[in-house]
Amino acid sequence: MPLPTIEWNDGKVRLIDQTLLPNELKYIDCENVDDVWEAIKVLRVRGAPAIGIAGALGTVIGIWNSDAKSYVEFSDQLLKVTSYLAESRPTAVNLFWALNRMKVVAEANKDKEIPRLKEILLAEAQKIIEEDKAMCRAIGRHGAELIKDGDTILTHCNAGGLATADYGTALAVMFTAHEQGKRIKVFADETRPLLQGARLTAWELMQAGIDVTLICDNMAGQVMKEGKINCVIVGADRISANGDTANKIGTYSVAILAKEHKIPFYVAAPTSTLDMSLPNGDLIPIEQRKAEEITEGFGKRTAPKGVKVYNPAFDVTPSRLIDVIITEKGIARPPYAQSLKNLC
Amino acid sequence: MPLPTIEWNDGKVRLIDQTLLPNELKYIDCENVDDVWEAIKVLRVRGAPAIGIAGALGTVIGIWNSDAKSYVEFSDQLLKVTSYLAESRPTAVNLFWALNRMKVVAEANKDKEIPRLKEILLAEAQKIIEEDKAMCRAIGRHGAELIKDGDTILTHCNAGGLATADYGTALAVMFTAHEQGKRIKVFADETRPLLQGARLTAWELMQAGIDVTLICDNMAGQVMKEGKINCVIVGADRISANGDTANKIGTYSVAILAKEHKIPFYVAAPTSTLDMSLPNGDLIPIEQRKAEEITEGFGKRTAPKGVKVYNPAFDVTPSRLIDVIITEKGIARPPYAQSLKNLC
Repeated sequence: MPLPTIEWNDGKVRLIDQTLLPNELKYIDCENVDDVWEAIKVLRVRGAPAIGIAGALGTVIGIWNSDAKSYVEFSDQLLKVTSYLAESRPTAVNLFWALNRMKVVAEANKDKEIPRLKEILLAEAQKIIEEDKAMCRAIGRHGAELIKDGDTILTHCNAGGLATADYGTALAVMFTAHEQGKRIKVFADETRPLLQGARLTAWELMQAGIDVTLICDNMAGQVMKEGKINCVIVGADRISANGDTANKIGTYSVAILAKEHKIPFYVAAPTSTLDMSLPNGDLIPIEQRKAEEITEGFGKRTAPKGVKVYNPAFDVTPSRLIDVIITEKGIARPPYAQSLKNLC
Repeated sequence: MPLPTIEWNDGKVRLIDQTLLPNELKYIDCENVDDVWEAIKVLRVRGAPAIGIAGALGTVIGIWNSDAKSYVEFSDQLLKVTSYLAESRPTAVNLFWALNRMKVVAEANKDKEIPRLKEILLAEAQKIIEEDKAMCRAIGRHGAELIKDGDTILTHCNAGGLATADYGTALAVMFTAHEQGKRIKVFADETRPLLQGARLTAWELMQAGIDVTLICDNMAGQVMKEGKINCVIVGADRISANGDTANKIGTYSVAILAKEHKIPFYVAAPTSTLDMSLPNGDLIPIEQRKAEEITEGFGKRTAPKGVKVYNPAFDVTPSRLIDVIITEKGIARPPYAQSLKNLC
């Protein structure tokens, strides 16, 4: 059973500080909405589903000490909190999805006393966590059907338990296949600049007893060429109505390499990642992050002072490069405009 | 005028310790053949042409204090030195080329007195350096004809002055185009695991006043997709008779990405990089390097203890992905089996 990534802890939001992994496994308690905002911003908590949960719990903590005397006043405070949290990361749609869900629940219970309303919002956040766990297991079950005994899988970034409440999306498929007794191997891209693959994915897979080999991002093409890879599985931060998928920077390159080597490319993500309001991926905003993540990523400067840097956090993989999208409701295949609509 | 990368300094081999760049520009003096072997092995000196020069100067230092009484004895010592140096890095053909050239010159002068023979070998190493400088300028001239005013070029690893005696191969093209007044921009892949792009290429281009932007390796696909790149230019460590090109790990992936985006892909390398004895690139041995380059590359551990690692130093780009090969003798185009033969 994986460790909880994020949970409610008696008026605080308790989460694993993922920036310290794999050297240190440490929980921190966020005591107010600023702490939660900062935890999302600097990636103490990351991964689309986990960011959604952080948004929901952050909303609760933001209104937990509210002394509002009316729903109108309370609603104003709630809106301020959710708007603030929405600014922490622009690409992950789960964040907006979770924040919106909290607002809808508040609105549906506007007739309740404020103390009761707070409890209802906490219960909703807890429900999001429980749904997330069930979602991960379902993605694992559906995805594992695609995995054969002896397969070697390549993954990029971290779509594991640490990216969700407990079990992951892309990694849920691997955990489930492993539990089913299939002998799988995994190659994990280290995933520059923040090395989520090296720090988190390799760590999670090793904890689960799965055979994992770490490579640099620029080695993915070579291991594919050597015939080592049977399929690629990655997570997603936002999927547009036609199946175009925003995920960690480098995913697009991996998808092109997979196509060149005729290796199936799978995306594993909950339906909360679907943004059916976007007809295609060109409209997904791409977060740009600061230069220092590249120039002094791990404690020492590795590039000349003053060098220009381009640091997009995500890219968009066009749906033509994606063989299937694995969701908790089942597997979608092209054409995605229809199959994703059917799942929703 | 670039700084000398490597030179003979009164009985020692003086070279820039490239592992300290860009934070510190420091010359070290190798006092014996072990120092030179270590400098090649740990990449204080790197880049195919510069390794060739290091091999030649290392040969000189290896026999400089020889007290051999006969050519047979001297030749034995020389062979021991060159065999030892040949083991420092297995992929770069220039090393074997330079070592062989030193042996051939010794053999051609076997009738000379030993002290005279030493002087002849030093003169030959100096000649390799002078030829290297002329070669770089010629590659720059030929290659610059392919560059248009306003072009943005993507490069991988470092094929700059630091990889040669002074001016580079891939970067020579950029230096020359810049000197011709063409307004070029460059995107430099940081090039994990050892970050030669971030540490060396960005530094050299900034020194030359060329507009350079640093990216992580996994961002190359994205910048191509955004239409930012007009062509790719990389160096080479070994080119087989059919044009297949071994170069720094990740080059193969960049070539596939360039093809997918219909961006021309150029290799710039001296004819000493050609290995006409190899019909194709499948026969080029690929150096495997130690795990710590990936797991503790940034001054602290960034991956779980005990994780398996795969760390090939090079990959081979098939000639079908290469639009032209720029050499000091001119530009070769497909089919390379014929065009490279014509250049030799």
